Amino acid sequence: MKNFDINEDPHRRFNPLINEWVLVSPHRAKRPWQGQNEKIHTDALPEYDATCYLCPGNVRANGENNPKYESSFVFENDFAAVKQEPILFEEELKPTFFKAVPERGIAKVVCFSPRHDLTLPEMDLASIETIIRTWQKEYTELGSVDYINHVQIFENKGSVMGCSNPHPHGQIWAQSSLPTQVEKTQNSLKAYFDKNQSNLLLDYLKEELKLNERIVIENEHFVALVPFWAIWPFETMIISKRHITKITEFTSEEVSAYASILKALTIKYDNLFETSFPYSSGIHQAPTDGEEHPEWQFHMHFYPPLLRSASVKKFMVGYEMMGEAQRDITPEKSAAVLKALPGVHYKNK
Amino acid sequence: MKNFDINEDPHRRFNPLINEWVLVSPHRAKRPWQGQNEKIHTDALPEYDATCYLCPGNVRANGENNPKYESSFVFENDFAAVKQEPILFEEELKPTFFKAVPERGIAKVVCFSPRHDLTLPEMDLASIETIIRTWQKEYTELGSVDYINHVQIFENKGSVMGCSNPHPHGQIWAQSSLPTQVEKTQNSLKAYFDKNQSNLLLDYLKEELKLNERIVIENEHFVALVPFWAIWPFETMIISKRHITKITEFTSEEVSAYASILKALTIKYDNLFETSFPYSSGIHQAPTDGEEHPEWQFHMHFYPPLLRSASVKKFMVGYEMMGEAQRDITPEKSAAVLKALPGVHYKNK
Ligand SMILES: O=P(O)(O)O[C@H]1O[C@H](CO)[C@@H](O)[C@H](O)[C@H]1O
Ligand SMILES: O=P(O)(O)O[C@H]1O[C@H](CO)[C@@H](O)[C@H](O)[C@H]1O
Repeated sequence: MKNFDINEDPHRRFNPLINEWVLVSPHRAKRPWQGQNEKIHTDALPEYDATCYLCPGNVRANGENNPKYESSFVFENDFAAVKQEPILFEEELKPTFFKAVPERGIAKVVCFSPRHDLTLPEMDLASIETIIRTWQKEYTELGSVDYINHVQIFENKGSVMGCSNPHPHGQIWAQSSLPTQVEKTQNSLKAYFDKNQSNLLLDYLKEELKLNERIVIENEHFVALVPFWAIWPFETMIISKRHITKITEFTSEEVSAYASILKALTIKYDNLFETSFPYSSGIHQAPTDGEEHPEWQFHMHFYPPLLRSASVKKFMVGYEMMGEAQRDITPEKSAAVLKALPGVHYKNK
Repeated sequence: MKNFDINEDPHRRFNPLINEWVLVSPHRAKRPWQGQNEKIHTDALPEYDATCYLCPGNVRANGENNPKYESSFVFENDFAAVKQEPILFEEELKPTFFKAVPERGIAKVVCFSPRHDLTLPEMDLASIETIIRTWQKEYTELGSVDYINHVQIFENKGSVMGCSNPHPHGQIWAQSSLPTQVEKTQNSLKAYFDKNQSNLLLDYLKEELKLNERIVIENEHFVALVPFWAIWPFETMIISKRHITKITEFTSEEVSAYASILKALTIKYDNLFETSFPYSSGIHQAPTDGEEHPEWQFHMHFYPPLLRSASVKKFMVGYEMMGEAQRDITPEKSAAVLKALPGVHYKNK
């Protein structure tokens, strides 16, 4: 019988953050592609677009004018998925199958730059630091609203990620409940902490640094790596080296180091297929429920859909929806590919 | 304070099958769309395509020729995600973060029809019955292989669902482990069964039939409904009315009724936006581990991505990936829309 070779043989890997498995099929990385290709937008964007509702000075859907902002700019989402309005709710006695509870929240849009054409990898470090300070401010302000217990900072980049406007921006959805994925993560972190009196992600990071097989970038305060249990072909996670439960704990040195690793990672992403690389990213950190959360460790996920070129993405469909996530290329291979890419943006070569 | 109105106010609903929540934002259903539109393929397909590797008589990637099949036809996937080969595995003592285990399995492709241009809604009932009997046969045969404990039958339809060939076909991935989503479902069904000595899905179905708010189609043996906790805009579930744990328990009357509801549901789907409606579908049923599974109830999920037209889909991205699934249109509204659609395929009007 053949001995198990993790680089060659089909296997499952376990994600201890959410207690789910991923099916890995390394031998399948070579199958030919006959499916759908994504449209690629390669037209250079203008610095300012008169029809863009995010550009400085322009008018938004609700009729308001954006200020002539010069760094980042935050406003309330005109089509928010959650609303601030309090709702009177008396739980009715219904069979368990019809459990519904009102949800209160605040949704905001964060413009990263007045420039319509600049995404993170092409911004200067000072501008990225301003975005991080904006995230800190929003986390503090939203988190201090009495009914807000969780602040989700995220970015959808690229039309393939449902992003409706190329103007660089992210979103923040703050709400009363812990969203499902965050609750799962918190339960795992908490169980580990209670059992080991130490932090799951920090212990994991220590092992990853020792093995050095999935590290993409490391600086003094942060590491960007492909998690052992990554599901997307080029998924990564940025983890802070120090025990930090939330973004407001960063020293100003850490803010700079975070800006630097964000820029370096997104440059590698753009360089991978020489395209403006689409992804969803999001920060996972302690909830704002007023409790201490020593089990938490600040980290940021990047879930990019591209698989083998600027136009061929990985589909998480049939088997993945009914069964479990599945990948072909191994996390180790992906990390090696990303690590080997130049640190200079391809447009500046 | 305003009283909670489930048709208007943001709320969360609980999915008792996998213990996850979905955020529902009914007020947001009217937001304008500025994002990506899908390419639509409206060219009529030929009955036979000489370049299609699934058409009868044609040659496949591995060099083999398909037989001149006349109903359905099954073969082993040339690029299987799992392999039959046994693998020698000695668990090493590694930190909990690096849990990987080899996975054995068999992956097959099921051609639904020799006709390149016929999908389920356009096939006659006899042909759909043949597909169901093929699924029964495969479930039995694959399930009886000693190391196979789960048989996942599914279909990816449409290029937007990563389907690389329009020739009507589904897949079957059979493997040693219970995939993550199935394991979660089984745990919930089991917990409910142990507590109530009755079947979660059958009890749910009873309530749904009483309320009659989310039922799309009902026949003597099956119901198609939009689950109370659906995440996709037009998600549905087909449930058998009798307590049936697996597809092989169907009487031949039930096979006919299943064919009939499959056809009726997919006709409604095609009629919704007058397009060949994309989706991933999959059957959830008892595993083939040799145990009795009274907690299981045969059901089939349909996860269609389209939101408001043949070219505008719902994106499960940033917030959904980091936080939890989110929908705008309510399940009740979707069910009413589907229910009201004609039962005759739009091409035959
Ligand atoms: O097997 P296919 O049709 O080539 O591939 C399709 O279905 C598979 C199973 O859902 C997915 O893993 C692939 O991402 C998808 O493109
Ligand atoms: O808010 P946007 O950018 O209009 O919408 C995008 O991001 C949201 C949050 O991830 C998703 O719910 C939408 O499906 C997506 O199109």
